[in-house]
Amino acid sequence: MIPKPQLDPQSEVPLYQQLHRHFTGLIQSGSLKRGERLPPTRELAGLLGLNRTTVSAAYELLEAEGLITGQVGRGSFVTGRDAAPVAGLNWEAILEASHVTPAQSALKPGADTISFAVSRPCEELFPLEDFRASCEEVMAGPDFASVLQLGSPGGYEPLRQYLIEGSRREGVLRPGDDVMITTGCQQALDLVRRVVMQPGDKVLVEEPVYPGVKNLFLESGAELTGIAVQANGMDVAQLERALAKARFKALVLTPNFQNPTGATMDREGREAILRLAHNAGMVVIENDIYGQLRYEGEALPTLKQLDSTGDSLLLRSISKISFPGLRVGWGIGPRPLIARMMEAKQLSDLHSDQLSQATLLHFALSGRIETHLARILEAGASRLKAALTACERYLPAGSRFTRPQGGMNLWVRLPEPLDASELLGRAHREGVSYLPGKYFAIHRAEPGSLRLSFAGVDPGRIEKGIEILGEIFSTELERQRASRDREPAPAMV
Amino acid sequence: MIPKPQLDPQSEVPLYQQLHRHFTGLIQSGSLKRGERLPPTRELAGLLGLNRTTVSAAYELLEAEGLITGQVGRGSFVTGRDAAPVAGLNWEAILEASHVTPAQSALKPGADTISFAVSRPCEELFPLEDFRASCEEVMAGPDFASVLQLGSPGGYEPLRQYLIEGSRREGVLRPGDDVMITTGCQQALDLVRRVVMQPGDKVLVEEPVYPGVKNLFLESGAELTGIAVQANGMDVAQLERALAKARFKALVLTPNFQNPTGATMDREGREAILRLAHNAGMVVIENDIYGQLRYEGEALPTLKQLDSTGDSLLLRSISKISFPGLRVGWGIGPRPLIARMMEAKQLSDLHSDQLSQATLLHFALSGRIETHLARILEAGASRLKAALTACERYLPAGSRFTRPQGGMNLWVRLPEPLDASELLGRAHREGVSYLPGKYFAIHRAEPGSLRLSFAGVDPGRIEKGIEILGEIFSTELERQRASRDREPAPAMV
Repeated sequence: MIPKPQLDPQSEVPLYQQLHRHFTGLIQSGSLKRGERLPPTRELAGLLGLNRTTVSAAYELLEAEGLITGQVGRGSFVTGRDAAPVAGLNWEAILEASHVTPAQSALKPGADTISFAVSRPCEELFPLEDFRASCEEVMAGPDFASVLQLGSPGGYEPLRQYLIEGSRREGVLRPGDDVMITTGCQQALDLVRRVVMQPGDKVLVEEPVYPGVKNLFLESGAELTGIAVQANGMDVAQLERALAKARFKALVLTPNFQNPTGATMDREGREAILRLAHNAGMVVIENDIYGQLRYEGEALPTLKQLDSTGDSLLLRSISKISFPGLRVGWGIGPRPLIARMMEAKQLSDLHSDQLSQATLLHFALSGRIETHLARILEAGASRLKAALTACERYLPAGSRFTRPQGGMNLWVRLPEPLDASELLGRAHREGVSYLPGKYFAIHRAEPGSLRLSFAGVDPGRIEKGIEILGEIFSTELERQRASRDREPAPAMV
Repeated sequence: MIPKPQLDPQSEVPLYQQLHRHFTGLIQSGSLKRGERLPPTRELAGLLGLNRTTVSAAYELLEAEGLITGQVGRGSFVTGRDAAPVAGLNWEAILEASHVTPAQSALKPGADTISFAVSRPCEELFPLEDFRASCEEVMAGPDFASVLQLGSPGGYEPLRQYLIEGSRREGVLRPGDDVMITTGCQQALDLVRRVVMQPGDKVLVEEPVYPGVKNLFLESGAELTGIAVQANGMDVAQLERALAKARFKALVLTPNFQNPTGATMDREGREAILRLAHNAGMVVIENDIYGQLRYEGEALPTLKQLDSTGDSLLLRSISKISFPGLRVGWGIGPRPLIARMMEAKQLSDLHSDQLSQATLLHFALSGRIETHLARILEAGASRLKAALTACERYLPAGSRFTRPQGGMNLWVRLPEPLDASELLGRAHREGVSYLPGKYFAIHRAEPGSLRLSFAGVDPGRIEKGIEILGEIFSTELERQRASRDREPAPAMV
């Protein structure tokens, strides 16, 4: 009898494909030998509690690949692993080492899961009609054919001009600056890394930090130093001490509603950091993708605005305020830097998708983006409030959590000895997801830390989700304390 | 009086912005000093032959930036370069060295220029109505919100599944293979480079080669060896000699309608190359973005199909057969390689734009892509024929050119001592553009070589453009020969 497959009905991969993979593995490994008969579809379906068509679909795939043949009235037989790779390359030796990224399963939970795992907007709030209208304007417009034609590495020029004008009005574009459009903020980070970093260069980042920053710079061979993020942003004294000890090429930070902590740096901190960076001759990369999502309190000037040298690079994106699936971000920085980033962009992907850029331009020019922003600010405020209230109410005593005034994330520190990584499996089984702190750590992972991304979840589910988490955490805390109390005291010696 | 600006009415940059840049430069360099009065808008407009509103717009920008102030009834005065960068970073020292890329001016000629400079489809043939219908289906469909939400690094899953099924039917997807979607083929090249190449690794490429391959691998610190491309593709004997001398990490090639030569490798060559690559333990990267554009002759199997190891990576794209502005390509390769490329993709830009991916899926599923492909094959055939006929008729005697059976490009070698780079300026002045061979060279630029990208130009303009080029080349050839004849013969010693 063949080994029973481990099928996961929650998975994104359809069951017939899981079953197909299972059999491919058995045939390629030789566990199922040439000439062996596969169980009849009806029998296997019954055995595994699957629909018979699921099993048939898997068999059809195997047959299409030449791994099995069906013989009428007799069943399906293994015809060998002839189609499988022979004596190929040793990929493990060839490929560069990988860096830890959050498991995709944590990011893509089942449909019913209350997911605090992804820092993204809520798709129920997407203004689909407004988007459709904007896109239809593009498709009916005189420039439609040129939108579909090869474009420029700097971005779709009308959108770029719109961003230039807006940045100038806002005071974040200096006379020596230029603007380029990127495939989201992540690509801007990648491009500046490409043109600025040499292997072995040292970079200052926040701790905890967004994994997309950490893994990107690690991949490029940079040496990372994390500076603690406190309630009022990056710890300036620690930064100063780090700068006294070594020379750093760049500083990457998110002064507004930092991911993962939600912390915002005060104006004094911003000014101090610019002074330090200026004296150290460092490139300052300011990630401001959450800046527009302020639900309360006064907006603060960006580093770019405060920077008298004009050298900072300011990164923005529409992903957090509207449609992350469109991947439109932009960078505002000194002309020589932007010029080299555009060259690197040309080698990366020539240019970003233009239909989205043109549609977003219409979305903005028509004023629809303002209406939408007002709605998501309102929704964000109520979600943030729901999250904070639920944390107060349900998290076990001794828990600490940040109290951001905007953005999408808050950061929880559970009392010792709780371990957020260990408890994630239990949370998943009870239908709630989050990201444990280890993914955001540079030097020291705090086992009790975790990120709650609240913006994509409605207030009712936020409360329910945090209630479930609170129950899991409290139960575990009691269990651990009880078990510790039961342990015999160590002998006095 | 201020220095007269060099304004280019053909430029993509609006005149008011050119004028604004001119004044910014004068103020920042100190040529225009604090307190100096700018010429009145009416006067400057008259002087430069510009509309007065153009000058006013430039002044308004300068004023918004704090570089000048307007005083009612008195005029505009320089208020200083206070807003300009002070004592900033030395960007030249910080930025990595750049690699030569074709001048953007060559790629974006004026509207009336007959441009053979860009390898791209003709936008007059874009099926705008069909595209619109596909996009509207997406926007009316049940998955529209999820298209706009954050997606997966591997691509929009329904499109990825469609590509997997199609690749399997075509026999280019082995059981051990996987598929990922990229922002055009350029990004697939960039991603495989990221996960496979270490600085100093050696790579084999074609000579002449697409600059996007050359510059990408140079930027990553690779050492390039070019193997000559002949009428039947890469020179196998030369490849064999290179492999006997050194160890190479990868081989990048375009067996079908290579860019820039249009050459196609015969089946024997393909098989020989796979044998050599297999023995050398090299990663084979097969760029097949032109493969579907065969206007005559029999299609040949891809390396991927012929490769018994299953190790090749096959790259494809919709840019050449439909809409380059959408940037959708994909890679088909061994699962371990694709898995690492997906990780690198996540660090590059998270994922590609999903609206385009979903729209292309509808465009394909509805059969509209087949109709369109038939149309562009017909158009391509007549354009290729027009280009070849015109080359026969108008290029000076002694010229050689390739005779591709498909694709978008042909390669011309002018008789000595003509230099295609030197003659480009004259061609531009007479309204025709092309790319000189130097951009495609690895070891030796042939001064007389140039690429004619014919697919984006209609047959009438192809004939006219090549006629103009023929006239320029012939005249110059005669002039040079006449001048050589007039030179005194060297003394016999």
